[in-house]
Amino acid sequence: NYSQMARSVEGLNAAGEWEVFRSLLPPLQDKRVLDIGCGFGWHCRYVMEQQAASVIGMDLSEKMLEQARLRNNGPGITYLREAMEDIDFPPGSFDVVLSSLALHYTGHYDLICRKVHNSLSAGGHFVFSTEHPVFTAMETQDWYYGTAGQRLHWPVDHYQDEGRRVARFLDTDVVKYHRTVATLINGLLDAGFIITRVEEPKPSPAVLEKYPEMKDETRRPIFILIAAQKPSAV
Amino acid sequence: NYSQMARSVEGLNAAGEWEVFRSLLPPLQDKRVLDIGCGFGWHCRYVMEQQAASVIGMDLSEKMLEQARLRNNGPGITYLREAMEDIDFPPGSFDVVLSSLALHYTGHYDLICRKVHNSLSAGGHFVFSTEHPVFTAMETQDWYYGTAGQRLHWPVDHYQDEGRRVARFLDTDVVKYHRTVATLINGLLDAGFIITRVEEPKPSPAVLEKYPEMKDETRRPIFILIAAQKPSAV
Repeated sequence: NYSQMARSVEGLNAAGEWEVFRSLLPPLQDKRVLDIGCGFGWHCRYVMEQQAASVIGMDLSEKMLEQARLRNNGPGITYLREAMEDIDFPPGSFDVVLSSLALHYTGHYDLICRKVHNSLSAGGHFVFSTEHPVFTAMETQDWYYGTAGQRLHWPVDHYQDEGRRVARFLDTDVVKYHRTVATLINGLLDAGFIITRVEEPKPSPAVLEKYPEMKDETRRPIFILIAAQKPSAV
Repeated sequence: NYSQMARSVEGLNAAGEWEVFRSLLPPLQDKRVLDIGCGFGWHCRYVMEQQAASVIGMDLSEKMLEQARLRNNGPGITYLREAMEDIDFPPGSFDVVLSSLALHYTGHYDLICRKVHNSLSAGGHFVFSTEHPVFTAMETQDWYYGTAGQRLHWPVDHYQDEGRRVARFLDTDVVKYHRTVATLINGLLDAGFIITRVEEPKPSPAVLEKYPEMKDETRRPIFILIAAQKPSAV
């Protein structure tokens, strides 16, 4: 299950996209940070290691938060059980809002963009990763296999039909929401953000040499990372 | 061949993405406009109909330009035979640069973004359409078919391997260049642009009712349109 995945047990360095995600974060020293969908709290720990002023880790799952409190507690970290759609912080509460692989679980992406924008100070940053539209378009969310069981290619269908997908993940049905690239970008723009970077991480040559099976991760994008900023002056 | 395609003969309204493309253009009245890869010149005609000050239509193909001069000539329109990589206009020459389905033919996207940025006045706009990374990733650029010839899905592979693709188009080998979504966005950002809109056009309900076979165009994105702006003040 989730708690046995490398990224859950070993933390951020076991997540292939972490180096790219980290490169998108602004300097965190003395910053007030919100982590939407904090899971086991690894990002909260990292944020405080960077000498942030404080971080709130939000998650809807009490089980996740239990593990977060157990594994990644410390001064300046507050864990909060709340649905991301219910964010309701006073304007300007945070300097940085981050979210790692959580936004594909919400059916209210545009609302969250607006709420995050409102919760940020002027010049504040919103950095997130989410499952890539190429990955979420089909409910199977799996390769298309040949008769010998080989991975022929990644199938895309229903790309323009945004909305609910029931995917199998670790033998459980998980409800996710498919959105197009355009919707991901325009939701931020409509909320008032400036786009500062878009990344579709791939394994580095060093990683490919060490883990040749990661080659398939170059065949289709699995995550998209977007960095956005609230303008400093309006 | 190309000259028999509806969009070549009938002009912009025969191109499914035109309504979306047009919606991304700023007001054109009194603007100095450059059209990169002007083809038969339909966009140049449209630009002048909007009472632009002038438009330069650039294309590498003398055959295209012959047709453009024949079909879409008029006061204010200049056709110029030049490779888009060789753009070399004085800084601030244009208020609007547009390009319709041409940039997937260049291996030098980042360079062109920089050159376009340089050629624009402060506050100027760059609006383009190009083949979507989902469409260009595989060289086949075709559906994956079932044994009964039905379109099973759109196959994606080699997504992270950017570069040259030799595709078949109207029975001819055509060299195109595949780039990721991230590269398309970041090339603009690195050149100094602000992203103002991203679109992945799909047939409207009205079009789907009139042309039910267009349903497949909702199954995968074929084009991506990006609107960007050079900041007004630096």
